[in-house]
Amino acid sequence: MLYDLMRKTRSYRRFKEEEPVDMETLRYFVVLARLGGSARNVQPIKYVLVNAPAVNEKIFPHLGWAGYLKKWPGPEKGERPAAYIVCLLDTRLSREAECDLGITTQNLLLGASEKGLGGCRIASFSPGLRNVLQLDDHLEVLLVIALGRTLEEVSLDELEPGGDIKYWRDDDQVHHVPKRPLQEIIVAEITG
Amino acid sequence: MLYDLMRKTRSYRRFKEEEPVDMETLRYFVVLARLGGSARNVQPIKYVLVNAPAVNEKIFPHLGWAGYLKKWPGPEKGERPAAYIVCLLDTRLSREAECDLGITTQNLLLGASEKGLGGCRIASFSPGLRNVLQLDDHLEVLLVIALGRTLEEVSLDELEPGGDIKYWRDDDQVHHVPKRPLQEIIVAEITG
Repeated sequence: MLYDLMRKTRSYRRFKEEEPVDMETLRYFVVLARLGGSARNVQPIKYVLVNAPAVNEKIFPHLGWAGYLKKWPGPEKGERPAAYIVCLLDTRLSREAECDLGITTQNLLLGASEKGLGGCRIASFSPGLRNVLQLDDHLEVLLVIALGRTLEEVSLDELEPGGDIKYWRDDDQVHHVPKRPLQEIIVAEITG
Repeated sequence: MLYDLMRKTRSYRRFKEEEPVDMETLRYFVVLARLGGSARNVQPIKYVLVNAPAVNEKIFPHLGWAGYLKKWPGPEKGERPAAYIVCLLDTRLSREAECDLGITTQNLLLGASEKGLGGCRIASFSPGLRNVLQLDDHLEVLLVIALGRTLEEVSLDELEPGGDIKYWRDDDQVHHVPKRPLQEIIVAEITG
Protein backbone atom coordinates (compact mmCIF):
# COMPACT_ATOMS: atom_id res chain seq x y z
CA MET A 1 0.00 0.00 0.00
CA LEU A 2 1.11 3.50 -0.81
CA TYR A 3 1.07 4.69 2.79
CA ASP A 4 3.50 1.99 3.91
CA LEU A 5 5.77 2.52 0.95
CA MET A 6 5.90 6.27 1.59
CA ARG A 7 6.52 5.71 5.28
CA LYS A 8 9.42 3.41 4.43
CA THR A 9 10.86 5.92 1.95
CA ARG A 10 13.20 7.73 4.31
CA SER A 11 16.72 9.13 4.02
CA TYR A 12 19.11 6.23 4.60
CA ARG A 13 22.79 6.96 5.02
CA ARG A 14 24.36 3.57 5.80
CA PHE A 15 24.37 0.75 3.27
CA LYS A 16 25.63 -2.74 2.57
CA GLU A 17 28.36 -1.45 0.29
CA GLU A 18 29.27 -4.92 -0.97
CA GLU A 19 25.76 -5.61 -2.29
CA PRO A 20 25.72 -4.23 -5.81
CA VAL A 21 22.78 -2.43 -7.40
CA ASP A 22 22.71 -3.43 -11.04
CA MET A 23 22.42 -0.95 -13.89
CA GLU A 24 19.00 -2.26 -14.91
CA THR A 25 17.65 -1.39 -11.48
CA LEU A 26 19.14 2.11 -11.63
CA ARG A 27 17.62 2.56 -15.07
CA TYR A 28 14.22 1.49 -13.72
CA PHE A 29 14.45 4.25 -11.11
CA VAL A 30 14.98 6.79 -13.89
CA VAL A 31 12.04 5.29 -15.80
CA LEU A 32 9.94 6.17 -12.73
CA ALA A 33 11.60 9.57 -12.31
CA ARG A 34 10.76 10.34 -15.93
CA LEU A 35 7.07 9.70 -15.24
CA GLY A 36 6.92 12.68 -12.88
CA GLY A 37 5.29 15.84 -14.11
CA SER A 38 7.43 18.82 -15.04
CA ALA A 39 6.70 22.54 -14.85
CA ARG A 40 5.70 23.73 -18.35
CA ASN A 41 6.70 20.19 -19.38
CA VAL A 42 10.28 21.33 -19.97
CA GLN A 43 11.85 18.20 -18.39
CA PRO A 44 15.26 19.78 -17.83
CA ILE A 45 16.55 17.16 -15.37
CA LYS A 46 19.07 14.58 -16.56
CA TYR A 47 20.82 11.73 -14.85
CA VAL A 48 24.16 10.02 -14.48
CA LEU A 49 23.94 6.45 -13.16
CA VAL A 50 26.93 4.99 -11.35
CA ASN A 51 27.49 1.57 -9.82
CA ALA A 52 31.21 1.12 -10.53
CA PRO A 53 32.98 0.68 -7.17
CA ALA A 54 36.07 2.54 -8.39
CA VAL A 55 33.96 5.56 -9.40
CA ASN A 56 31.82 5.35 -6.24
CA GLU A 57 35.07 5.73 -4.35
CA LYS A 58 35.90 8.90 -6.26
CA ILE A 59 32.43 10.38 -5.73
CA PHE A 60 32.26 9.73 -2.00
CA PRO A 61 34.82 12.32 -0.76
CA HIS A 62 32.86 15.06 -2.55
CA LEU A 63 29.70 14.49 -0.49
CA GLY A 64 28.51 16.17 2.70
CA TRP A 65 26.49 13.93 5.02
CA ALA A 66 23.77 14.67 7.58
CA GLY A 67 24.37 18.30 8.56
CA TYR A 68 22.80 17.91 12.02
CA LEU A 69 25.04 14.98 13.04
CA LYS A 70 28.08 17.10 13.75
CA LYS A 71 30.18 14.24 15.10
CA TRP A 72 29.45 11.89 12.22
CA PRO A 73 31.61 12.32 9.11
CA GLY A 74 29.44 10.02 6.98
CA PRO A 75 29.31 6.27 6.46
CA GLU A 76 32.49 4.31 7.06
CA LYS A 77 34.08 1.98 4.57
CA GLY A 78 31.83 -1.01 4.01
CA GLU A 79 28.72 1.08 4.75
CA ARG A 80 28.97 3.48 1.85
CA PRO A 81 26.54 3.67 -1.08
CA ALA A 82 26.67 0.87 -3.64
CA ALA A 83 25.38 3.19 -6.36
CA TYR A 84 24.61 6.78 -7.16
CA ILE A 85 22.15 8.57 -9.37
CA VAL A 86 23.35 12.11 -9.94
CA CYS A 87 20.58 14.55 -10.90
CA LEU A 88 21.63 17.30 -13.27
CA LEU A 89 20.05 20.43 -14.61
CA ASP A 90 20.38 20.92 -18.34
CA THR A 91 20.90 24.67 -18.23
CA ARG A 92 20.16 24.95 -21.97
CA LEU A 93 16.56 24.03 -21.12
CA SER A 94 15.87 25.80 -17.84
CA ARG A 95 17.50 27.95 -15.21
CA GLU A 96 16.03 26.12 -12.25
CA ALA A 97 14.04 22.99 -11.59
CA GLU A 98 13.77 22.53 -7.83
CA CYS A 99 10.10 21.54 -7.80
CA ASP A 100 10.68 19.12 -10.68
CA LEU A 101 13.64 17.79 -8.73
CA GLY A 102 11.45 16.98 -5.75
CA ILE A 103 8.92 15.23 -7.98
CA THR A 104 11.40 13.11 -9.93
CA THR A 105 13.48 12.10 -6.93
CA GLN A 106 10.39 11.15 -4.97
CA ASN A 107 9.36 8.78 -7.75
CA LEU A 108 12.93 7.48 -7.84
CA LEU A 109 13.15 6.88 -4.10
CA LEU A 110 9.70 5.29 -3.91
CA GLY A 111 10.97 2.93 -6.60
CA ALA A 112 14.00 2.17 -4.45
CA SER A 113 11.72 1.28 -1.54
CA GLU A 114 9.65 -0.92 -3.82
CA LYS A 115 12.82 -2.84 -4.70
CA GLY A 116 13.87 -3.18 -1.06
CA LEU A 117 16.58 -0.55 -1.38
CA GLY A 118 16.98 2.85 0.18
CA GLY A 119 18.59 6.13 -0.64
CA CYS A 120 19.40 9.63 0.45
CA ARG A 121 19.18 12.99 -1.28
CA ILE A 122 22.51 14.75 -0.85
CA ALA A 123 22.45 18.45 -1.67
CA SER A 124 25.87 19.17 -0.18
CA PHE A 125 28.73 18.34 -2.52
CA SER A 126 31.97 19.97 -3.59
CA PRO A 127 32.52 21.53 -7.02
CA GLY A 128 35.07 18.82 -7.85
CA LEU A 129 32.26 16.32 -8.27
CA ARG A 130 31.59 17.53 -11.80
CA ASN A 131 35.14 16.63 -12.80
CA VAL A 132 34.72 13.08 -11.52
CA LEU A 133 31.65 12.78 -13.72
CA GLN A 134 33.27 14.61 -16.65
CA LEU A 135 30.19 16.73 -17.17
CA ASP A 136 29.68 18.97 -20.16
CA ASP A 137 29.48 22.68 -19.37
CA HIS A 138 25.71 22.90 -19.79
CA LEU A 139 25.06 20.34 -17.05
CA GLU A 140 24.87 21.47 -13.43
CA VAL A 141 24.73 19.06 -10.50
CA LEU A 142 21.53 19.56 -8.48
CA LEU A 143 21.48 16.57 -6.20
CA VAL A 144 23.24 13.28 -5.60
CA ILE A 145 21.09 10.29 -4.71
CA ALA A 146 23.05 7.71 -2.74
CA LEU A 147 21.60 4.21 -3.09
CA GLY A 148 22.02 0.73 -1.72
CA ARG A 149 20.69 -1.98 0.53
CA THR A 150 20.16 -0.06 3.76
CA LEU A 151 21.75 -0.91 7.08
CA GLU A 152 19.92 1.71 9.01
CA GLU A 153 16.73 1.89 11.01
CA VAL A 154 14.88 5.20 10.72
CA SER A 155 12.13 6.13 13.13
CA LEU A 156 9.52 8.78 12.40
CA ASP A 157 8.70 10.51 15.67
CA GLU A 158 5.83 12.88 16.38
CA LEU A 159 7.27 16.33 17.07
CA GLU A 160 6.01 17.91 20.27
CA PRO A 161 4.73 21.50 20.00
CA GLY A 162 7.74 23.79 20.15
CA GLY A 163 10.08 20.81 19.81
CA ASP A 164 13.28 20.63 17.79
CA ILE A 165 13.05 19.42 14.18
CA LYS A 166 16.69 18.29 14.07
CA TYR A 167 17.06 14.59 13.31
CA TRP A 168 19.29 12.66 15.72
CA ARG A 169 20.70 9.22 16.48
CA ASP A 170 20.18 7.22 19.62
CA ASP A 171 22.74 4.91 21.24
CA ASP A 172 21.53 1.97 19.15
CA GLN A 173 22.25 4.03 16.02
CA VAL A 174 18.56 4.37 15.24
CA HIS A 175 18.05 7.55 13.23
CA HIS A 176 15.14 9.61 14.57
CA VAL A 177 13.22 12.08 12.41
CA PRO A 178 10.80 14.34 14.31
CA LYS A 179 7.79 15.03 12.10
CA ARG A 180 5.45 17.96 12.62
CA PRO A 181 2.01 16.60 13.58
CA LEU A 182 -0.80 16.66 11.05
CA GLN A 183 -2.71 19.29 13.06
CA GLU A 184 0.25 21.63 12.73
CA ILE A 185 0.57 21.37 8.95
CA ILE A 186 -3.14 21.58 8.17
CA VAL A 187 -3.90 25.28 8.56
CA ALA A 188 -7.60 25.08 7.72
CA GLU A 189 -10.29 22.72 6.46
CA ILE A 190 -12.98 24.54 4.55
CA THR A 191 -15.90 22.23 4.04
CA GLY A 192 -19.56 22.66 3.24
CA MET B 1 2.26 -1.52 -9.23
CA LEU B 2 4.21 1.66 -8.79
CA TYR B 3 5.00 2.09 -12.46
CA ASP B 4 1.32 2.08 -13.45
CA LEU B 5 0.35 4.39 -10.63
CA MET B 6 3.05 6.88 -11.60
CA ARG B 7 2.09 6.66 -15.24
CA LYS B 8 -1.51 7.41 -14.31
CA THR B 9 -0.47 10.36 -12.13
CA ARG B 10 -0.72 13.10 -14.71
CA SER B 11 -1.98 16.68 -14.67
CA TYR B 12 -5.75 16.55 -15.10
CA ARG B 13 -7.64 19.76 -15.73
CA ARG B 14 -11.24 18.66 -16.26
CA PHE B 15 -13.29 17.05 -13.51
CA LYS B 16 -16.72 15.79 -12.58
CA GLU B 17 -17.43 18.88 -10.53
CA GLU B 18 -20.59 17.42 -8.99
CA GLU B 19 -18.76 14.44 -7.49
CA PRO B 20 -17.55 15.62 -4.11
CA VAL B 21 -14.22 14.70 -2.56
CA ASP B 22 -14.78 14.30 1.16
CA MET B 23 -12.61 15.96 3.78
CA GLU B 24 -11.32 12.61 5.06
CA THR B 25 -9.91 11.87 1.61
CA LEU B 26 -8.24 15.28 1.40
CA ARG B 27 -6.77 14.72 4.85
CA TYR B 28 -5.39 11.34 3.72
CA PHE B 29 -3.58 13.09 0.89
CA VAL B 30 -1.91 15.39 3.41
CA VAL B 31 -1.03 12.36 5.55
CA LEU B 32 0.90 11.09 2.51
CA ALA B 33 2.37 14.51 1.72
CA ARG B 34 3.63 14.69 5.31
CA LEU B 35 5.55 11.44 4.82
CA GLY B 36 7.79 13.06 2.22
CA GLY B 37 11.31 14.00 3.25
CA SER B 38 12.17 17.65 3.82
CA ALA B 39 15.45 19.51 3.33
CA ARG B 40 17.13 19.82 6.74
CA ASN B 41 13.86 18.35 8.05
CA VAL B 42 12.39 21.85 8.41
CA GLN B 43 8.95 20.86 7.04
CA PRO B 44 7.86 24.40 6.20
CA ILE B 45 4.94 23.45 3.93
CA LYS B 46 1.40 23.78 5.25
CA TYR B 47 -1.98 23.09 3.70
CA VAL B 48 -5.47 24.46 3.36
CA LEU B 49 -8.08 21.87 2.37
CA VAL B 50 -11.19 23.00 0.57
CA ASN B 51 -14.20 21.07 -0.68
CA ALA B 52 -16.94 23.64 -0.08
CA PRO B 53 -18.58 24.41 -3.47
CA ALA B 54 -19.14 28.05 -2.53
CA VAL B 55 -15.45 28.51 -1.71
CA ASN B 56 -14.33 26.50 -4.74
CA GLU B 57 -16.23 29.03 -6.78
CA LYS B 58 -14.33 31.89 -5.17
CA ILE B 59 -10.96 30.19 -5.71
CA PHE B 60 -11.48 29.31 -9.36
CA PRO B 61 -11.24 32.82 -10.93
CA HIS B 62 -7.84 33.28 -9.30
CA LEU B 63 -6.28 30.36 -11.17
CA GLY B 64 -4.36 30.28 -14.44
CA TRP B 65 -4.81 27.09 -16.47
CA ALA B 66 -2.55 25.31 -18.98
CA GLY B 67 -0.26 28.03 -20.30
CA TYR B 68 0.34 26.29 -23.63
CA LEU B 69 -3.37 25.98 -24.48
CA LYS B 70 -3.80 29.60 -25.51
CA LYS B 71 -7.39 29.21 -26.68
CA TRP B 72 -8.56 27.36 -23.59
CA PRO B 73 -9.54 29.55 -20.62
CA GLY B 74 -9.77 26.61 -18.21
CA PRO B 75 -12.48 24.09 -17.36
CA GLU B 76 -16.07 25.17 -17.91
CA LYS B 77 -18.76 25.05 -15.29
CA GLY B 78 -19.53 21.45 -14.39
CA GLU B 79 -15.94 20.41 -15.19
CA ARG B 80 -14.18 22.43 -12.51
CA PRO B 81 -12.33 20.96 -9.52
CA ALA B 82 -14.43 19.45 -6.74
CA ALA B 83 -11.74 20.24 -4.19
CA TYR B 84 -8.48 22.06 -3.67
CA ILE B 85 -5.43 21.57 -1.53
CA VAL B 86 -3.53 24.83 -1.32
CA CYS B 87 0.15 24.41 -0.46
CA LEU B 88 1.63 27.20 1.62
CA LEU B 89 5.10 28.16 2.75
CA ASP B 90 5.38 29.04 6.42
CA THR B 91 7.87 31.88 5.97
CA ARG B 92 8.70 31.81 9.67
CA LEU B 93 10.35 28.44 9.07
CA SER B 94 12.00 28.78 5.68
CA ARG B 95 12.44 31.20 2.81
CA GLU B 96 11.92 28.64 0.08
CA ALA B 97 10.85 25.04 -0.24
CA GLU B 98 10.54 24.21 -3.93
CA CYS B 99 12.18 20.79 -3.74
CA ASP B 100 10.08 19.92 -0.68
CA LEU B 101 7.06 21.10 -2.63
CA GLY B 102 7.78 18.66 -5.43
CA ILE B 103 8.21 15.82 -2.96
CA THR B 104 5.05 16.46 -0.94
CA THR B 105 2.82 17.12 -3.91
CA GLN B 106 4.05 14.01 -5.67
CA ASN B 107 3.04 11.93 -2.65
CA LEU B 108 -0.27 13.76 -2.59
CA LEU B 109 -1.03 13.22 -6.28
CA LEU B 110 0.04 9.57 -6.18
CA GLY B 111 -2.46 9.23 -3.35
CA ALA B 112 -5.12 10.83 -5.55
CA SER B 113 -4.40 8.28 -8.28
CA GLU B 114 -4.60 5.48 -5.74
CA LYS B 115 -8.09 6.71 -4.82
CA GLY B 116 -9.18 6.94 -8.46
CA LEU B 117 -8.98 10.73 -8.48
CA GLY B 118 -6.73 13.12 -10.34
CA GLY B 119 -5.29 16.54 -9.87
CA CYS B 120 -3.23 19.33 -11.27
CA ARG B 121 -0.47 21.51 -9.84
CA ILE B 122 -1.34 25.14 -10.55
CA ALA B 123 1.51 27.57 -10.06
CA SER B 124 -0.25 30.47 -11.73
CA PHE B 125 -2.67 32.31 -9.44
CA SER B 126 -3.51 35.90 -8.64
CA PRO B 127 -2.56 37.63 -5.38
CA GLY B 128 -6.24 37.85 -4.42
CA LEU B 129 -6.27 34.14 -3.69
CA ARG B 130 -4.77 34.73 -0.25
CA ASN B 131 -7.74 36.90 0.69
CA VAL B 132 -10.21 34.17 -0.27
CA LEU B 133 -8.33 31.84 2.06
CA GLN B 134 -7.89 34.50 4.76
CA LEU B 135 -4.25 33.60 5.22
CA ASP B 136 -2.10 34.93 8.02
CA ASP B 137 0.79 37.14 6.92
CA HIS B 138 3.45 34.48 7.49
CA LEU B 139 1.82 32.10 4.99
CA GLU B 140 2.66 32.38 1.30
CA VAL B 141 0.82 30.44 -1.41
CA LEU B 142 3.22 28.19 -3.33
CA LEU B 143 0.90 26.01 -5.35
CA VAL B 144 -2.75 25.13 -5.72
CA ILE B 145 -3.64 21.49 -6.27
CA ALA B 146 -6.95 21.10 -8.09
CA LEU B 147 -8.61 17.77 -7.38
CA GLY B 148 -11.55 15.70 -8.45
CA ARG B 149 -12.81 12.74 -10.41
CA THR B 150 -11.15 13.32 -13.76
CA LEU B 151 -12.96 13.66 -17.07
CA GLU B 152 -9.86 13.83 -19.14
CA GLU B 153 -7.70 11.37 -21.00
CA VAL B 154 -4.00 12.16 -20.93
CA SER B 155 -1.59 10.49 -23.30
CA LEU B 156 2.17 10.31 -22.69
CA ASP B 157 3.87 10.52 -26.07
CA GLU B 158 7.50 9.85 -26.87
CA LEU B 159 9.14 13.12 -27.92
CA GLU B 160 11.04 12.93 -31.19
CA PRO B 161 14.59 14.32 -31.17
CA GLY B 162 14.35 18.07 -31.62
CA GLY B 163 10.57 17.93 -31.14
CA ASP B 164 8.41 20.39 -29.25
CA ILE B 165 7.79 19.75 -25.53
CA LYS B 166 4.55 21.77 -25.46
CA TYR B 167 1.56 19.70 -24.42
CA TRP B 168 -1.45 19.91 -26.73
CA ARG B 169 -5.02 18.67 -27.24
CA ASP B 170 -6.29 16.70 -30.18
CA ASP B 171 -9.76 16.97 -31.68
CA ASP B 172 -11.09 14.33 -29.30
CA GLN B 173 -9.91 16.48 -26.39
CA VAL B 174 -7.20 13.99 -25.50
CA HIS B 175 -4.39 15.86 -23.76
CA HIS B 176 -0.98 14.90 -25.16
CA VAL B 177 2.22 15.24 -23.13
CA PRO B 178 5.43 14.73 -25.14
CA LYS B 179 8.02 13.11 -22.88
CA ARG B 180 11.74 13.20 -23.55
CA PRO B 181 12.90 9.66 -24.25
CA LEU B 182 14.92 7.78 -21.65
CA GLN B 183 18.06 7.89 -23.80
CA GLU B 184 17.90 11.67 -23.79
CA ILE B 185 17.65 12.08 -20.02
CA ILE B 186 20.27 9.47 -19.11
CA VAL B 187 23.54 11.28 -19.80
CA ALA B 188 25.85 8.43 -18.78
CA GLU B 189 25.89 4.98 -17.22
CA ILE B 190 29.11 4.30 -15.39
CA THR B 191 29.30 0.64 -14.55
CA GLY B 192 32.04 -1.80 -13.67
